[in-house]
Amino acid sequence: MNRRRRIYEGKAKILYEGPEPGTLIQHFKDDATAFNNEKHEVVDGKGVLNNRISEYIFNNLNNMGIPTHFIRRLNMREQLIRQVEIIPIEVVVRNVAAGSLCKRLGLEEGTQLPRSIIEFYYKNDELGDPLVSEEHITAFGWAAPPELDDIMALAIRINDFLSGLFMSVGIRLVDFKIELGRQIEGDMMRIVLADEISPDSCRLWDTTTNDKMDKDRFRQNMGGMVEAYQEVARRLGILIDNDRPGQSGPVLVK
Amino acid sequence: MNRRRRIYEGKAKILYEGPEPGTLIQHFKDDATAFNNEKHEVVDGKGVLNNRISEYIFNNLNNMGIPTHFIRRLNMREQLIRQVEIIPIEVVVRNVAAGSLCKRLGLEEGTQLPRSIIEFYYKNDELGDPLVSEEHITAFGWAAPPELDDIMALAIRINDFLSGLFMSVGIRLVDFKIELGRQIEGDMMRIVLADEISPDSCRLWDTTTNDKMDKDRFRQNMGGMVEAYQEVARRLGILIDNDRPGQSGPVLVK
Repeated sequence: MNRRRRIYEGKAKILYEGPEPGTLIQHFKDDATAFNNEKHEVVDGKGVLNNRISEYIFNNLNNMGIPTHFIRRLNMREQLIRQVEIIPIEVVVRNVAAGSLCKRLGLEEGTQLPRSIIEFYYKNDELGDPLVSEEHITAFGWAAPPELDDIMALAIRINDFLSGLFMSVGIRLVDFKIELGRQIEGDMMRIVLADEISPDSCRLWDTTTNDKMDKDRFRQNMGGMVEAYQEVARRLGILIDNDRPGQSGPVLVK
Repeated sequence: MNRRRRIYEGKAKILYEGPEPGTLIQHFKDDATAFNNEKHEVVDGKGVLNNRISEYIFNNLNNMGIPTHFIRRLNMREQLIRQVEIIPIEVVVRNVAAGSLCKRLGLEEGTQLPRSIIEFYYKNDELGDPLVSEEHITAFGWAAPPELDDIMALAIRINDFLSGLFMSVGIRLVDFKIELGRQIEGDMMRIVLADEISPDSCRLWDTTTNDKMDKDRFRQNMGGMVEAYQEVARRLGILIDNDRPGQSGPVLVK
């Protein structure tokens, strides 16, 4: 079954060779990790939910003209994507102070930021994904200045879209992380959104109760992680409650 | 004697009220500190040397049209400066990998950087002066975007000047830290260089031997700190050897 070639295995996903050149299959695992892999658990059903939530978001972004690597979902755990050259930078967009920003700048969690802030982290597990600035990125050639301009413009558009998307279902987009890649088509090169967008990569708080509906439930040992991810999917209209007798729990909309 | 009003006491300097409005007196102490004050010693003669080296550099920068807070040296330990509104950012310009950059990005000390890199650190002892990016600086209003442009342009000019100055006396400018202030004159506001430039705030390596001639001698318990600072001053032509019998050691050129 899995005789296809494995290209890369990350903490929460596996990439396999795709059915045709220039494509890959992105497989969502149930593994949850935090603090640079120091904390690790298997959370039943997480991969299925993230595959579905990320599909929903990437499809919408594609339709809005925001280029992504996403082609289509293949099954419960897998999606077909375009092969891109990953830029070794994690881009974080923050609207509300949380996580490492609070610690770094002495802010209280939940403080509304004066404006959205874009941060860059160098993707390097050994170094603990250090914060870097545009200067580091361009000096070391991780991305060229015009690429960085494209990346920041994409990050702002994605933040605007996601803020609206979640706001309308009672969720506050506190922050999120994205990864980007270079897609080469003939002589053309463009920056596209890669990886995933899911409650693993966003901080999502219920607008009314401030309940956390994201990976912080795992990081902070709060429990109820899968239930929170299910609730995000349900509010987005991806998950419907199945009320047929004899079957329990929610199911994913096909 | 010291009945004048103390405005501020830092780790290595004291600021007193100046003789006329809009001026201050900057007093250089002999205190050496490192690692956010965890390491502290009194190093006889350091303040005198830094006062003199910084005077020499700031005078030259003023003459080149790079605006600074420096007016004139008053005595062995003190200089008259313009009062400015200090911007709460330390600006570091790096030409060669050393110090925290090596740790952060896994580089070997002494690696020539692909180009000079400007870094920003938020001046806050409690937070350990964290690295920040342009995004943090402008979002929190620590400096406005046009001010940041001025700051980066000044930093590059100062790096060019200092690189040449030290190169011609057999010293490699590895990196340096500067602080900047807003000087208000009538309706006009301009960014000026403040604080000091000395072996406390630069990494200076002998071009031939790579010997350290800066505060790393203190940070790394290498000894010979004052001797190294004296050698920097001597090469810059500020310090002359006194060979009159009955007097030992070098003296500062008046």
